[in-house]
Formats: sequence, structure tokens, C-alpha cells
Amino acid sequence: MKSKHILLAHGSGGSMMHDLIKEVFLPAFDNPLLRQGNDLAVLDNPGGRLAFTTDSYVVHPLVFPGGSIGELAVHGTINDLAMGGARPLALSVGMILEEGLEIRLLEDIVGRMKLAADNAGVPIATGDTKVVERGSCDGMFINTSGIGVVDESLRIGGAEARDGDVVILSGTIGDHGVAVMSERKGIRFTTPVKSDTQALHRLVAHMLEVTTDIHVLRDPTRGGVATTLNEIAMQSGHGIEIEEDLLPIPPAVTGACDLLGLDPLYLANEGKLIAIMPARYADDMIAAMRSLPEGKDSCRIGRVVTELPGVVRMKTGIGGTRIINVLSGEMLPRIC
Amino acid sequence: MKSKHILLAHGSGGSMMHDLIKEVFLPAFDNPLLRQGNDLAVLDNPGGRLAFTTDSYVVHPLVFPGGSIGELAVHGTINDLAMGGARPLALSVGMILEEGLEIRLLEDIVGRMKLAADNAGVPIATGDTKVVERGSCDGMFINTSGIGVVDESLRIGGAEARDGDVVILSGTIGDHGVAVMSERKGIRFTTPVKSDTQALHRLVAHMLEVTTDIHVLRDPTRGGVATTLNEIAMQSGHGIEIEEDLLPIPPAVTGACDLLGLDPLYLANEGKLIAIMPARYADDMIAAMRSLPEGKDSCRIGRVVTELPGVVRMKTGIGGTRIINVLSGEMLPRIC
Repeated sequence: MKSKHILLAHGSGGSMMHDLIKEVFLPAFDNPLLRQGNDLAVLDNPGGRLAFTTDSYVVHPLVFPGGSIGELAVHGTINDLAMGGARPLALSVGMILEEGLEIRLLEDIVGRMKLAADNAGVPIATGDTKVVERGSCDGMFINTSGIGVVDESLRIGGAEARDGDVVILSGTIGDHGVAVMSERKGIRFTTPVKSDTQALHRLVAHMLEVTTDIHVLRDPTRGGVATTLNEIAMQSGHGIEIEEDLLPIPPAVTGACDLLGLDPLYLANEGKLIAIMPARYADDMIAAMRSLPEGKDSCRIGRVVTELPGVVRMKTGIGGTRIINVLSGEMLPRIC
Repeated sequence: MKSKHILLAHGSGGSMMHDLIKEVFLPAFDNPLLRQGNDLAVLDNPGGRLAFTTDSYVVHPLVFPGGSIGELAVHGTINDLAMGGARPLALSVGMILEEGLEIRLLEDIVGRMKLAADNAGVPIATGDTKVVERGSCDGMFINTSGIGVVDESLRIGGAEARDGDVVILSGTIGDHGVAVMSERKGIRFTTPVKSDTQALHRLVAHMLEVTTDIHVLRDPTRGGVATTLNEIAMQSGHGIEIEEDLLPIPPAVTGACDLLGLDPLYLANEGKLIAIMPARYADDMIAAMRSLPEGKDSCRIGRVVTELPGVVRMKTGIGGTRIINVLSGEMLPRIC
């Protein structure tokens, strides 16, 4: 690139935009779908029901311990597909860049997206770039959308939770939220907390080999485990009871939360899932999940009940019970 | 809504975000796909090859004569699908909102999106909302992605242009660019120029009834007719020759361009297409296109040639020839 920074002309549709695409995006994301070079990608149809999802990423700062907006954008949309039991087919990438953004930083983030997409085995099929004037966006925002296919036999969704179902969590919580907040506030911990950003579609595929009778899969991102469980309780019309002593919270996250005044139950996770299914599958499922790196800390955290429909309760370590509400206000803006 | 303005908490994942979705987005966009209420939509698979496209919209100002960012976001992505010969199945909507945005304005734009999607017969299947702090984005940005199906027999793409093909334009040019620029600069014309934003998928379906042997379809948005023809010339390795006297430029657009120092050939259009096909279909195709409102001003504007591969030339009204280059710099930032 002749320029070291993004200029408005990089979004104009003219030759500088073509150069940006040719020199930064195409070499990184190169694959046969993208190489079609039209405003849309055309894919073979593998059959099955189609899954379709979208997410915009506005995390601040753009890079943080364990990842960046790039990994989040790739993993997050793959995970939204996986949470419907879908096998991801392809991603789209829509970038909004601020005039003045360092092209070296853009290249770094694009490289991280490429690596994340390659590792996940999901091609970036089509894209779009816009540039806005300095001060009209904060560095860069990324939208990724994803398409996938869902086996006809699966019926996975928040409304499917049933009385007596077990609630399983695929690993520790709070890591992503603490990683971003500590970077934003310039705090260094002796044990650094890294974002858990990772793709979960292989874990889900592995879980579906244990049973296809999974009722709910949901990744507890914005709003954390507390908000996700509340959504499921409301959608299904059941209550959910979790046990504080069963929650896998790393000591470093607990320490950081005490310091920053945060509650790990409400912190975003970017590489974890909550699975709800008949309790008889729990042992086999947890064993299968633990056999993959992305599920190595999987554990049971609670169950679905008929009492108090729509409400999430937690049995506390000291023997009491606490209602886990949805927060009305903002806890952590721009966490993903 | 209790608040009249967007607050950071509307993006938090908590109860204020649920209220925003429940009170603003769901009532407007309501359809069975969106009502699934999960992070992804699941659709029946109609067969055929799959088409997938994405576009972000950052137009400034948000509302302008003839439309708004809302219509652009719906029509633009439908048109990207249509330009591949795809029948649109569903759209996703990813919104990035600035803290302080008036909720009345958001509702207005969401209502325009709903109307555009309904008129086009394409459901908004899934969505996402993020909120960033005041000053971190300019009002609102919208990403729409789209999926569709393409008949197995079609081979439409910029590289398919052939020697002797006719170049057809579906109507007047420059309207959208002038409408946005005049609004931005606060200029009122005696004959107001309105954006041409409209969906073109029905026009394309009608064209494919004349012949499926269409080589190229492309909508001349950012960078205008000049840039789009250059892309096709480069992708196909052919030259393209257009005739100035054949270009349908409304007098009001010509007048505004003179005043604002703009060239209509480089102005964005949001409801027009360029079609390239064997010349023998030209008369029937133009007649068919003119039978629909969105193609009523369709006309031949030039042809594909072997001379000067990759170059676009224009025969001027006074009998000369002018090379139509790709602009390197920015002509009109944030036009879509």
C-alpha cells in the first residue's frame, strides 16, 4: 500500500479501494468463493435446513489479551451457527473503517481473522468495506454473517428446555470480560487473564454424536451466563436452578472481579456454551466434551425445574438461594 | 420505550436491550423466521446453488430525498443477490447505534426497512444490535447480509462479458448521488432530485424469462456506471464502448452536477442495473424491461469489444472518444 493509513478514498469504489482489497483482503482471505470476484458468493447446496445469523463487533480496545476484534468476529458468528446445531458453510465480512486507521493494524486484524477462519475450516466467502471520516467511527467495526446447514432431525432452541433437564457449561466463565476490561483500564495482573475466544462448532458436532436429543445450546456472550439462563427460562417458561459451588470461575477472574467490581455471572464469554438436555445424558456428554480442548473444563452447573417459571435461582455456597436477575442497565459497554 | 434516546444499556444484552428488540424491532420486522427468537434463523432449503452477500451502509445524512439508510440497506443487499441471478430468500440486519440517537428516528428508519422488505417480499430473518458511546459512530450504521438461491443453469458474472455483447442500462443515472449530496449541502432544486433506491430482483426475474443467457448483471452503486463498467472490462479482459448520447441523464441531474462539480458517470445509483448479453436479445430484453416500472427507462448504452482489453471508452456527443478511467481518489464519501 502506498499509504500507511486508511484514507476516505479507500472506501470510494475507485482504484484505491481495489488496491486495498487486492493487497490486504484477498491475499489474506484467499479462497475459491472469494475469488469469484462478484458482489456475492455462490456455493454448492449441501441440503438440509439453512441456518443464517449475523453479529456486529464493536469491542474496545481492538486488541486485548488472548485475541482481537478479528477472532471475535470469526468465532462469534461460527458459534451462533453452532448454537443452532448448524454446520457452518461460509462467513461474510463487512468492515467499517475509520479514516486514519493504521493499515498495519488492519493487516494484523485481517491476518488474525484469516487464521481463525482457517483453523475453523470455514471460508470467508464475501465481503464489503466502507470508510467513514475521522471521528465517525472508533477505529473499526466488523460485521460477520454466517450461513450453515442444520440436520432435519434437530430441534435446538431456547424454548425446548424441559423439566428435569441438566444444565451443562463447557468451561470457565468470565475470562473474556476480564481480559477486555483489564486491557481497557490498563491493569496488569500477575496471572494474566486471556480472552477465551474460540470456535465451538467442532465441540457441538462431537456433542451431537453422543445424542441429537439436545434441547438448548447457547453461548453466554453479552450479559454472561446470568443473562443467557434468564433468556432460556423466559423462552421455555421453566425455572432454572444453578449451584454456586459448581460454577467454574478461575481464581484470577474472581480476583479481578473483586478489584473491578464485576460479577463473573454477568461477564461475556466468547468460547463457552451452555447445553441443556435430559439428565440421563449428562455423564456421557460431559466425558465427551472434556475429550476436546475447547470443552476440557465442562461440568454440570444446574437443572431445569417447573417452579418459578421464567426465573433463574442460585443455591449459594452458604446454603441460601438468590434470584439471578437480568440486569436492566449497562454493565460493560463494547465488550464484543 | 421509557427513554426517548438510545442509551448504552440498550446494547448491553440486559433487559433494556430486550425491551428495544421487543418494542421497536420485533413489531416492525415481525415474521415467522424472526419469531424463532434464537441467535440464528433456520429456513427450509429450496434447493439450487446458494448465494450469499453482505453490505454495510454508512450514508450521511440518514434521511434524504426519496429514501433513507433503511431503504438502501434492504434494497442494496437484495440487489446484490439479484445481480447474481439469485432469488432472495432472507436478509439479516446488524445495527450499530450511537448513544443519544433519537428513538423516534430509529423507529422511522426501522419502519422504512419493514416497508421495503415487505414490498420486496423478502423477510428479515435475523438481527443484532450494538450500541457505542456518543461520538464513537455517526448516528447509525446498518449491515445487511442476504441469502438466496441461484438456478443451476445460470452463469452470470463480471468475467462472462463477450465480444459483440450489448450493454443495457435499466434507467436514468445519477439520481441517488445528487439526492444525497444536495441534502448534505442543504441545496434545494426547483425540480427535486430523488434517490432511485428500489429493489431489482423482480426486474431480473422478468429478464431471465426473456433469456437465461445473460452474461453480466451489475448495479452501478459506489463509483457509478464508470467504475462498474471498468470492473467488468477488467474482469472479462474485454473493452467496453459506450455512447454519450445514449446515456439517460435527467436534466435535473445534469444541472445539479454542473453546480456541484460532479460527473454523473461516477455518481452512485441505488436502483439501476447494467446488463450485458448477446446483442440478438437486445430488442426483446429492452421491451421486457420497460414493461416493469423499475425498468421503464431501459436502453442500450454501448457494446463489448475486443480492442483495448480492460478499457472503457465513450464516444462523445461531438464525435470524439474519451477514456473513462477508474477514479483513484474519493469523489463522494458515505454515499451509501
